[in-house]
Amino acid sequence: MARENYAGGGRAAQYIGDGDMRVVDQPVPTPGPGQVRIKVAFCGICGTDLHILHGNMDSRVETPQAIGHEMSGTIDAVGEGVTALAPGAGVTVMPLDWCGTCPACEAGHQHICQNLDFVGIETTGAMQQFWVVPESLVVPLPEGLALDHAALIEPLAVAAHDVRRSRLTAGETAVIVGGGPIGQLISLVAQGTGARVILAEPNADRRAFAERNGAQVVNPVEENLAAIVEAETGGAGADVVFEVAGIAATALEAPRLARTRGRVVMVAIHAQPVPIDLHRVFWRELELIGARVYEREDFERAIELLASGHVPADELITRKVPLAETKTAFNDLTDARALKVLIDVQN
Amino acid sequence: MARENYAGGGRAAQYIGDGDMRVVDQPVPTPGPGQVRIKVAFCGICGTDLHILHGNMDSRVETPQAIGHEMSGTIDAVGEGVTALAPGAGVTVMPLDWCGTCPACEAGHQHICQNLDFVGIETTGAMQQFWVVPESLVVPLPEGLALDHAALIEPLAVAAHDVRRSRLTAGETAVIVGGGPIGQLISLVAQGTGARVILAEPNADRRAFAERNGAQVVNPVEENLAAIVEAETGGAGADVVFEVAGIAATALEAPRLARTRGRVVMVAIHAQPVPIDLHRVFWRELELIGARVYEREDFERAIELLASGHVPADELITRKVPLAETKTAFNDLTDARALKVLIDVQN
Repeated sequence: MARENYAGGGRAAQYIGDGDMRVVDQPVPTPGPGQVRIKVAFCGICGTDLHILHGNMDSRVETPQAIGHEMSGTIDAVGEGVTALAPGAGVTVMPLDWCGTCPACEAGHQHICQNLDFVGIETTGAMQQFWVVPESLVVPLPEGLALDHAALIEPLAVAAHDVRRSRLTAGETAVIVGGGPIGQLISLVAQGTGARVILAEPNADRRAFAERNGAQVVNPVEENLAAIVEAETGGAGADVVFEVAGIAATALEAPRLARTRGRVVMVAIHAQPVPIDLHRVFWRELELIGARVYEREDFERAIELLASGHVPADELITRKVPLAETKTAFNDLTDARALKVLIDVQN
Repeated sequence: MARENYAGGGRAAQYIGDGDMRVVDQPVPTPGPGQVRIKVAFCGICGTDLHILHGNMDSRVETPQAIGHEMSGTIDAVGEGVTALAPGAGVTVMPLDWCGTCPACEAGHQHICQNLDFVGIETTGAMQQFWVVPESLVVPLPEGLALDHAALIEPLAVAAHDVRRSRLTAGETAVIVGGGPIGQLISLVAQGTGARVILAEPNADRRAFAERNGAQVVNPVEENLAAIVEAETGGAGADVVFEVAGIAATALEAPRLARTRGRVVMVAIHAQPVPIDLHRVFWRELELIGARVYEREDFERAIELLASGHVPADELITRKVPLAETKTAFNDLTDARALKVLIDVQN
């Protein structure tokens, strides 16, 4: 277990089990050899954090535990042997802790290590003022990237990974089924690749956000998505479909939106097996592609997209709330009343 | 419809609807411009032909109609404008008739044309002595390839296509779930690529065939296939899984046999949506790949494998029966009492 290589302190928002959280103050830890202490600035709330609060991940989370992994901050202190990072540097963390010895790691797929620990789930997370992590996980920020924007790097890296797995290229058409935070970020990354995006989402606010940011939008409850995709692609179907909604109906429909030899990326997590139209997969020689977290190059791509101004970071951040209001912010997200909420850990 | 570009004559085994066949004698047709008349030698019985006899494809088949598409023969006469083929040449036919103008064809995926006619389903087939087809579908045989062996080219091209779609390379491990004719051919093609094969099949005769031909075999009813695959791959899982059994249980299990970033080729046809373990697809970043029929290069690969002696053709051909016994042969195959039966159309 990686837990012992992580520590936290200062004011912290902790999951305490039974759907509840608390804010506590704890001593500030000292970084050991090969570790750094980060003064956390912002920490976004991820869908995974909601799952934790709802008790769906109790087998992986020790309580009480600070959670959170979409973070930004500055190096506050470094342990013995750390030379590449100095106090004051702006950083984020790629929250994957792999074993290095399993078959997946040996094959070069460390990010989906067979013994992977996810930092902020299997370890203490970033919703606390001081966070000690191994130096190897730290990703330095470029000059001038605002720390609130930098808290979007991790979810944007998810989207960059999804798009990279899809092999989407300029001039292709991508259909994104689901316009929550990850769907919106995939739309932005896909357009950054030069692709055209059609995004399907029943929520009007989320459709409006996608439309303002370059996507053609469809309300799949009132319109026939498959017919629109067919008409918009000259009868071919989409080059790539991203299934981000995570419900059985969209998993069933996704392959029906793709052209011959199209790629369908299954972004959403389906805990149980769901019916898939394998006949369509066969008939059109589709590829259904799994995508999980990210690799270092996805973090780099995310930083590039944020630093260049391609991503409307201020618009993506619905609001920033102080650490004391973490639980209220979780509840707003559960009700889809916000796109991305950052915990301002400095206040 | 492509039907008008095909004709047949001489003695023929026809599907007449209601699960029944008959043998009739008809006039010998004359090839028109761009057509050739083939004197058919052998025609294998495919799983698709069984589906036709069982009435499952009545919406695509006109009755009475000679069926069959796994064929070999010799050019008997050529129509106006045909210069590349001369009477006496040994040939087979790639039984795909595409439109050339749909989005799939324009994208270079003619073999899965959105308006594809399958020759021997949507047209008259090869279970007759004389068969007129467009010159463009004819594939010449190399010198010395026996005509009975050549009737295996089409199903072997299916297997070659499946293996090509899987991107299997030398040194990788392939698990084949299902040891019917296509599963056995995939095993041979995969080994021809330099891969190691583990084949799972409950039927003892089929397991014995696979084992004699280089595969490690597993009886999935009595043994734990997933545990064996894991042990045999150092805990990694298979590089490629071919799901050829076509039942819900194997479709559910197939992704669980694959390593991180492994490929799962869905070879079997599932008419209805079936539950798929998308969590495993996500967790290991798998690819589920659809594969349908073949392209010209798969026919060439099949011919190469047969001509080189890599494929034990005589062993694959359980027996050859005269045209008059076609219906009995169909029934034997339905009961899995044979691997590959050829109709000897010359007798």
